[in-house]
Amino acid sequence: MPIDYDKIKNWPFPDIEQTYTEKDSILYALGVGYGHDPMDEAQLQFVYEQGLKAAPTMPVVLANPGFWVKDPATGIDWVKIVHGEQALRIHQTIPATGTVIGRMRVKAIVDKGKDKGALLIQERSIVDKASGALLATLEHTTFCRGDGGFGKGDAAPPPPPAPPEGKPDVSCDLPTLPQSALIYRLCADRNPLHADPAVAKAAGFPRPILHGLCSYGVAGHAILKTFCGYDPSKLTALSLRFSAPVFPGETIRTEMWNRGETILFRSRVLERDVVVLNNGVATINA
Amino acid sequence: MPIDYDKIKNWPFPDIEQTYTEKDSILYALGVGYGHDPMDEAQLQFVYEQGLKAAPTMPVVLANPGFWVKDPATGIDWVKIVHGEQALRIHQTIPATGTVIGRMRVKAIVDKGKDKGALLIQERSIVDKASGALLATLEHTTFCRGDGGFGKGDAAPPPPPAPPEGKPDVSCDLPTLPQSALIYRLCADRNPLHADPAVAKAAGFPRPILHGLCSYGVAGHAILKTFCGYDPSKLTALSLRFSAPVFPGETIRTEMWNRGETILFRSRVLERDVVVLNNGVATINA
Repeated sequence: MPIDYDKIKNWPFPDIEQTYTEKDSILYALGVGYGHDPMDEAQLQFVYEQGLKAAPTMPVVLANPGFWVKDPATGIDWVKIVHGEQALRIHQTIPATGTVIGRMRVKAIVDKGKDKGALLIQERSIVDKASGALLATLEHTTFCRGDGGFGKGDAAPPPPPAPPEGKPDVSCDLPTLPQSALIYRLCADRNPLHADPAVAKAAGFPRPILHGLCSYGVAGHAILKTFCGYDPSKLTALSLRFSAPVFPGETIRTEMWNRGETILFRSRVLERDVVVLNNGVATINA
Repeated sequence: MPIDYDKIKNWPFPDIEQTYTEKDSILYALGVGYGHDPMDEAQLQFVYEQGLKAAPTMPVVLANPGFWVKDPATGIDWVKIVHGEQALRIHQTIPATGTVIGRMRVKAIVDKGKDKGALLIQERSIVDKASGALLATLEHTTFCRGDGGFGKGDAAPPPPPAPPEGKPDVSCDLPTLPQSALIYRLCADRNPLHADPAVAKAAGFPRPILHGLCSYGVAGHAILKTFCGYDPSKLTALSLRFSAPVFPGETIRTEMWNRGETILFRSRVLERDVVVLNNGVATINA
């Protein structure tokens, strides 16, 4: 049965309130890999309560509505969905602790054709409850492989810029841990695909894969280290396309091209020389 | 000023109630290093909520009274104290989630002489609140280097058995992570010595050291893996002496001698060939 465009476009999301503590912020940062060099004080600011700061990509785990597309009423063939792209704009430095409200909406549904699937673009605003200030806006693009051809839809957004030809201006290698997915899922998505070997095998993977949003956080770390001197207030936007899974324990090399306040990037896993994140764009507040 | 034996012996500890969740049990296990091989289902039982079990050494972080000896009223020269020995008896398998009551008492204070310091032996009972069952009994021996010669005290307990001469029957190598102390402290002791390079340096260490009780958990893992087939109900007691610090990221080799239901052991750091845990005794329920 084709999906009902109007129903999904107007899906009634309740506001989600989340209070998060120092421990939550530290756990997110450890899950993403900050602290891999425990003598590096710049990383320590995200994993140690003295002068604690939130890692700038933390909004991806805040006030998350969960796996709502699994609701049969959506009509979405959820078994075939893939997290395609993730974007984040940071309007204010994310506090290390606080209470936030997440407001979701379906921004667009794009019909790519019967055999090509559909794009579901969700937008989530993260608001600081105490001040009412908008902290961050997230855009989560789901590729619904089984839902093309529903016959009505929004225009496709412009494609994200491909990385330039030739050698990157600079690269940054960051390790993940064999247990990165196990740590990361404690503050985020508990999908067993990231922990249970049997579930991973049933999904066609030789072993559990890292969360896409965990590798997203690693790319954010690479940008923060390379272009922001680890000052989280300098990173104002980060978007990318997921192109292949990462296995926990692999090393992620982020290759970056400096275009002034815009950094173009992609990331590859060194052990397999596979591009895992592509079409990356970061915006720096110089 | 010498310590007041009667005052400390009768220190009024309030009962401590702690409710712990799946997340707490998983975090403890990840901090100690379970899950370093995420394809090993035997380890997964401690770090994944499906069929979750508590790691058997988890009582060391449950219902902990904190750093009470720092209270000036104790008269203890707390700057000079060192965690000397740790013992644990497990009376019932520790539930993966629950509410426990911790009951503390000072079991003994031993005067080793003016220049030799004192031993402070604390006992903590961990009781399951719902059933009233005694789950575990902990014995924590603090070596108070600055408090010898107070003139009255309890008899010294018998020394723990030294490991046998010659080669161990079996060894087990387990890795720690550069960020092990940062993970472990989220569910335990937040002493900055384990996170802050400046504090570690002031204490005479080149970098932050791993919690003694974290390496204790690694030794427990080695026993559990080698002699219990990862069945936590088979480990009924674990005691050892701390002999040198471990730095996060080092590999801990536990050397074991099989004496039937008793396992004698010590642990060394491979990278520096230093014995870090000694006089270890584990009891196995065969």
